[in-house]
Amino acid sequence: MEKLHIIKIGGNIIDNTSALSDFLSDFHRLAGHKVLVHGGGKIATQLAKDMGLEATMVEGRRITDEAMLKVVTMVYAGLTNKQIVAQLQGLGTDAIGLSGADANSISVVKRPVKKVDFGFVGDITESSVNAKRLSELLALSLCPVFCAITHDGHGQLFNTNADTIASALAIGLSPYFETVLTYCFEKKGVLMDVKDDHSFIHQLDRKNYPLLKDKGIIADGMIPKLDNAFDALDRGVAKIIIKHAFDLLDENMGTVIS
Amino acid sequence: MEKLHIIKIGGNIIDNTSALSDFLSDFHRLAGHKVLVHGGGKIATQLAKDMGLEATMVEGRRITDEAMLKVVTMVYAGLTNKQIVAQLQGLGTDAIGLSGADANSISVVKRPVKKVDFGFVGDITESSVNAKRLSELLALSLCPVFCAITHDGHGQLFNTNADTIASALAIGLSPYFETVLTYCFEKKGVLMDVKDDHSFIHQLDRKNYPLLKDKGIIADGMIPKLDNAFDALDRGVAKIIIKHAFDLLDENMGTVIS
Repeated sequence: MEKLHIIKIGGNIIDNTSALSDFLSDFHRLAGHKVLVHGGGKIATQLAKDMGLEATMVEGRRITDEAMLKVVTMVYAGLTNKQIVAQLQGLGTDAIGLSGADANSISVVKRPVKKVDFGFVGDITESSVNAKRLSELLALSLCPVFCAITHDGHGQLFNTNADTIASALAIGLSPYFETVLTYCFEKKGVLMDVKDDHSFIHQLDRKNYPLLKDKGIIADGMIPKLDNAFDALDRGVAKIIIKHAFDLLDENMGTVIS
Repeated sequence: MEKLHIIKIGGNIIDNTSALSDFLSDFHRLAGHKVLVHGGGKIATQLAKDMGLEATMVEGRRITDEAMLKVVTMVYAGLTNKQIVAQLQGLGTDAIGLSGADANSISVVKRPVKKVDFGFVGDITESSVNAKRLSELLALSLCPVFCAITHDGHGQLFNTNADTIASALAIGLSPYFETVLTYCFEKKGVLMDVKDDHSFIHQLDRKNYPLLKDKGIIADGMIPKLDNAFDALDRGVAKIIIKHAFDLLDENMGTVIS
């Protein structure tokens, strides 16, 4: 089975032109099949502000109303996605920018309304990823670049969490490729001491993870992320790596979950 | 040789939600391989206004400066393109939205600076269209939906005339398909009498076109359009049709240039 790298980058890289440019150079040098998933960044927030839109919050959660969906579609699927694709093309990577609507690559369902109606927020399901279609594009040596905009297959666009998209792609493509899922973020990995960026854990597995959770070393926001990572392993993903975007090509860096 | 329809729609359809929806239903029903090219519309102008940007004009010509390039990339490649793709997917057409940067499908050169520097306006050349790549996507039964954003292959995005993109695609894909290029606009075709929308000429060819030009019946803005159409015929396009968007599926309507 051929290897497939799925790399997710967040807003901290996208908002920094030179950091993004350095990252894309590294991404270009990554050999073999690859997919990039990018999150948002501050541009959408700034654009909404420029347009006089106010973020709608319910119970501390951001709501994607129709106006905000238009803003994120413009920024994520338009500006950010096409700037990244053009830069990768300039480097020699044959990138193709995709929303979930394009080639019906990721279809979602509107997040069910319980306490809060999140608006145009789409949730990933078991059948969201059109893995056959994506494997055809990868077989053409194309490099899909995903933004966090999806659709429901009935004409409606949705905003979907980029971390979840990356994970769903890795799981969905596992029957076709040995998938390695890398989350790039602003830390060097999962830290033993949140104040010491060099204290990253090299290896997390089913043995040491529960122990580190019990001791309270891994806590808070990191727990759902890691629970999702172990779930992705269960569902066919070969390896998950959490590392700093600058360390993309350094195999000794980051936390490897396997 | 299989037939390929390349359909170009302009801002007048894009700005009218129900007209666009009707058009896309017709486009969906068009059998066989097809490509849609869409122009701009008023949304970009409105967004620029909302953002406090003023259109930069030099000698009566609109200049695409960096801020305006961002606006058109957001609106054309983001909002408009993805809304069209999602709607087509909802109808059952497997659409894939593309800028020229995506899969390096259309690369351009910056318009040479003579009297006026148009900024980020890219001109089509003989080698602009990556016909091999597009024929691979069409062979997967995908329907490319192009916005009028292109790239130079060195990391820079450009704004390019949508009519020219449609024509370049038809010419470039002619070695692979029998290409039929349809320009949809707000008239029923090339009119004998500009005041009478029913007076459209059914057939234009190399015999009657010079006569109609000499008599002044075809004049002004229509001449460069038609000269370009005859040039496209010389370069391999099978047929060019100019018709109203509402008449897409009616083979008896519109002006056929062959």
